[in-house]
Amino acid sequence: MAAPETLRIIPLGGLGEIGLNMMLIEYGGQSLAIDCGVMFPEPSMLGIDLVVPDWTYLRERPDSLQGLICTHGHEDHIGALPFLAREFPVPTYATPFAHALIKNKREEHNIEFPLECFRAGDSWRVGPFEIEAIHITHSIVDTVALAIRTPVGTIVHSGDFKFDPTPLDDHPSDLPHLAELGDEGVLALLSDSTNVERPGVTPSERSITRNLEAVFLQSPGRVLVSTFASHLHRIQQVLDISARTNRRVAVAGRGMVTNIGIGQDLGCLRVPDGVMVDLNEARQVPPDRLTVLTTGSQAEPRSALTRIAMNGYKKLAIDPGDTVILSSRMIPGNEKAIGEVINHLHRRGAEVLYEKVATGLHVSGHANQAELSLMMQLIRPKFFVPIHGEYRHLIRHVALAERMGMPAENCFLLEDGDVLELEQEHARRGEPVTAGRVFVDGKGVGDVEDVVLRDRRHLSDGGLVLAMLAVDQHTGDVISGPELISRGFGVGDESQAHFERAREAVLAALEELAPESRTVPAEVKEEMRRTLRRYFKKALDRRPVILPVVTEL
Amino acid sequence: MAAPETLRIIPLGGLGEIGLNMMLIEYGGQSLAIDCGVMFPEPSMLGIDLVVPDWTYLRERPDSLQGLICTHGHEDHIGALPFLAREFPVPTYATPFAHALIKNKREEHNIEFPLECFRAGDSWRVGPFEIEAIHITHSIVDTVALAIRTPVGTIVHSGDFKFDPTPLDDHPSDLPHLAELGDEGVLALLSDSTNVERPGVTPSERSITRNLEAVFLQSPGRVLVSTFASHLHRIQQVLDISARTNRRVAVAGRGMVTNIGIGQDLGCLRVPDGVMVDLNEARQVPPDRLTVLTTGSQAEPRSALTRIAMNGYKKLAIDPGDTVILSSRMIPGNEKAIGEVINHLHRRGAEVLYEKVATGLHVSGHANQAELSLMMQLIRPKFFVPIHGEYRHLIRHVALAERMGMPAENCFLLEDGDVLELEQEHARRGEPVTAGRVFVDGKGVGDVEDVVLRDRRHLSDGGLVLAMLAVDQHTGDVISGPELISRGFGVGDESQAHFERAREAVLAALEELAPESRTVPAEVKEEMRRTLRRYFKKALDRRPVILPVVTEL
Repeated sequence: MAAPETLRIIPLGGLGEIGLNMMLIEYGGQSLAIDCGVMFPEPSMLGIDLVVPDWTYLRERPDSLQGLICTHGHEDHIGALPFLAREFPVPTYATPFAHALIKNKREEHNIEFPLECFRAGDSWRVGPFEIEAIHITHSIVDTVALAIRTPVGTIVHSGDFKFDPTPLDDHPSDLPHLAELGDEGVLALLSDSTNVERPGVTPSERSITRNLEAVFLQSPGRVLVSTFASHLHRIQQVLDISARTNRRVAVAGRGMVTNIGIGQDLGCLRVPDGVMVDLNEARQVPPDRLTVLTTGSQAEPRSALTRIAMNGYKKLAIDPGDTVILSSRMIPGNEKAIGEVINHLHRRGAEVLYEKVATGLHVSGHANQAELSLMMQLIRPKFFVPIHGEYRHLIRHVALAERMGMPAENCFLLEDGDVLELEQEHARRGEPVTAGRVFVDGKGVGDVEDVVLRDRRHLSDGGLVLAMLAVDQHTGDVISGPELISRGFGVGDESQAHFERAREAVLAALEELAPESRTVPAEVKEEMRRTLRRYFKKALDRRPVILPVVTEL
Repeated sequence: MAAPETLRIIPLGGLGEIGLNMMLIEYGGQSLAIDCGVMFPEPSMLGIDLVVPDWTYLRERPDSLQGLICTHGHEDHIGALPFLAREFPVPTYATPFAHALIKNKREEHNIEFPLECFRAGDSWRVGPFEIEAIHITHSIVDTVALAIRTPVGTIVHSGDFKFDPTPLDDHPSDLPHLAELGDEGVLALLSDSTNVERPGVTPSERSITRNLEAVFLQSPGRVLVSTFASHLHRIQQVLDISARTNRRVAVAGRGMVTNIGIGQDLGCLRVPDGVMVDLNEARQVPPDRLTVLTTGSQAEPRSALTRIAMNGYKKLAIDPGDTVILSSRMIPGNEKAIGEVINHLHRRGAEVLYEKVATGLHVSGHANQAELSLMMQLIRPKFFVPIHGEYRHLIRHVALAERMGMPAENCFLLEDGDVLELEQEHARRGEPVTAGRVFVDGKGVGDVEDVVLRDRRHLSDGGLVLAMLAVDQHTGDVISGPELISRGFGVGDESQAHFERAREAVLAALEELAPESRTVPAEVKEEMRRTLRRYFKKALDRRPVILPVVTEL
């Protein structure tokens, strides 16, 4: 156990491999969480719906968590909140747009926890921590960095950020305030590593206006723009350009409709008068006078764009002459699926503009190397911890810090579950804690673990063969069977022949079984399993899951 | 049936969605195949080992296939040959390096078919077709384009190509010969579309020498270079640079060892004297004097590089100071896995150089837009068919041809199974034929179809619940059960409680069953399935595969 005067920084998610963010700051047995995100499952996570952080560490310290602050409203920062709140309904603080998104989640999940709204510039106290929120730019409105003043010193958590000097709302990051924090003295900077592989600076949101507008002017048909539904500034651009180029805007996709409504209510999205048209009436608008905003930039199977591409979206079908803009990056792992959506859109006659064939229609929301350096120069921390990235990003961010003169021993590459213990002049690694990922499958959270996934993988690789046998309980003589039933196994027309030979192999093997084993169902089952496994391996080079069932009569 | 004087072009694979190449050229009931590739399965193709083209069309015309020509030795052009040869052991023609690779495959698969070797510049006859092979550059040695003279006119098939003006073997593409073919008159050009999204020209192989050499000079430890095992020119560069920078070269990965041997035997790889060192003796070489050539640039699970990254490769472990170069592109779909390998290499202390953080360490093997235009200008075909690409590539290639003045009605965007019928002055689409993909699973080819995959997907999504019930065959009364067994289903500690409630639900449902149904096993099974499905959906929001088994006693 650390001495009470030690400040502990404990990433529970988002550092190393898994893209769901959750950070703990702990002092004197009280802790504060920053963000609580979900991840969508990778293909190897068979049947999993969502992945959430593992907060076993909190479970072992009931009542230690004092509150949770969301830096912004992206799913990888707020998505796991309803799951956390089932166990820890602690006060949760979020900026207006994130607050609205979380409120919706709270209703959907039918769960109660106190939810407070704050704005950049606000300060407040949570347990032993004095929080201050600093406005920064990102690919979603209402994003903040956090200054967390503790008895040991000030921690600055960058959130996700870029330093866009000319954002669409004329409200750039609060660099002077970051510099003031630096003047005051910062014990540790925790800074976003997502784009550390990229040199220079991320172009401004405003840099894509001209390119988007050119497409709107030149397209002979409708312009469909697909982007993240939470990217209100991108949506604002599309609305403004549409108004200027005399196009009306229809919206396809539930998330997009919801977020546009929230953005308008909050006053952070200004819809030009008369520009909106209901999707049901969009057919009456001439194609060269229509824009369609859609979700689905990552080819999510049930998204509007994917269904439009597959010609399975009732309210809208692509016509030749239409142009589709994918105003987003391809998230690694989604390239194949996005490629297929692009193929299908082309098949329906659309021109499709995506990052490989048209530059300047999307910019990243994360800071490149020069911006990361600037953050470091403004904050001038004593200790540095790269956050939000896979291992390769974190290590490059440490190298960048070292090039800027940060002593190597003051940089800490933490992965999920690692612990950094800070005192005013010293920092050291503590004992790692449990952290990582927990699977959500339907209503179950955490009951599907790696062993269940291994079974699913085995079933998915080779299917299943069920072998049923009835034996005499006294003699072990076979009364009927083995009857073989398969699922996901294959062998088509030859299956009867194979199953017949497999049956014979089982009967022969059971004949050979020692008399004292023949009345022991477990041994009979094991012999059936072994024989069938061997037969299918040899005959077909396949490894189905084999389920032997023995009925004693 | 087309009139005998019509020439038919029939892509069986590689055009539209699937990256395995196979093209048929047919005249007077006789056909010639060009390439016969495999594809590695996508994650959705559960349990599948390989994907090969569907040659049902050939099966319906026994004896029509006269021979098969391989344009080069990449797997997506030769990998399915052993499977084709089981049914159609026709004469197969390949350039020396491809010939050697195919010979190895023929032995591995223990299959016989006539295999001939040809060289660029050779001409020969196959059925009604006069073949001529033209040297072109690509990312594997011994690559050719083909001129196929037929009674209707000449077809030029580009193979996979780029126009590297300064290849490592000083043997650029035979542009003069392509121009001569154009002078002679070409009926149709079939041209590689892989890189049509990229403007300009692909840089020369030689352009990366300086960048590679700088890394070799600067690395304080070993330099590991991962590339495709068939890329002999890249391997040559690594050998030459190692010799110049006073490093010895060890080779990790069976494919790499084999191919270096073949390359030396064929005289297309020159190993500098004394540069090679056995991997078992590599430990004795000082790190800054050692290069390691490895396979695994796509993070294939059992490859040398992946095992090295996971610290599971006996003969070699990464030390801090080592540098790993991924001298290859990330094939779409592999990004996540490659990212994980990069993370692990960093964890072991290596510096890792890959396309995102270091440019100029790899060049593509395919022609960019300017080279595709040059091909068109040299050949000046009457008709144009883009090949080797997904739909989005094919349509862009057609657009490029049209921009160069090719009439739209002379460009044919064919997908797998589409048929182009050519006469001397006319071209038209014929009736499509069966084509597409066939799955290889173990020893089975084609028996695992989409319905089997659907079952595997269902099993992988929700696992399996087996429900066993014994009933009295006369009354239908339940004697024992239902007993529930699950695999890949989960619910952890609560499973007993859930299974108990599910059992009760089944018994209650069977009580309600009409007396005349209770003695019909099919109806009892259906009722069990329905009840369990409903229970697990409601209680857990899960959909396992449910297998009811009813034993009548």
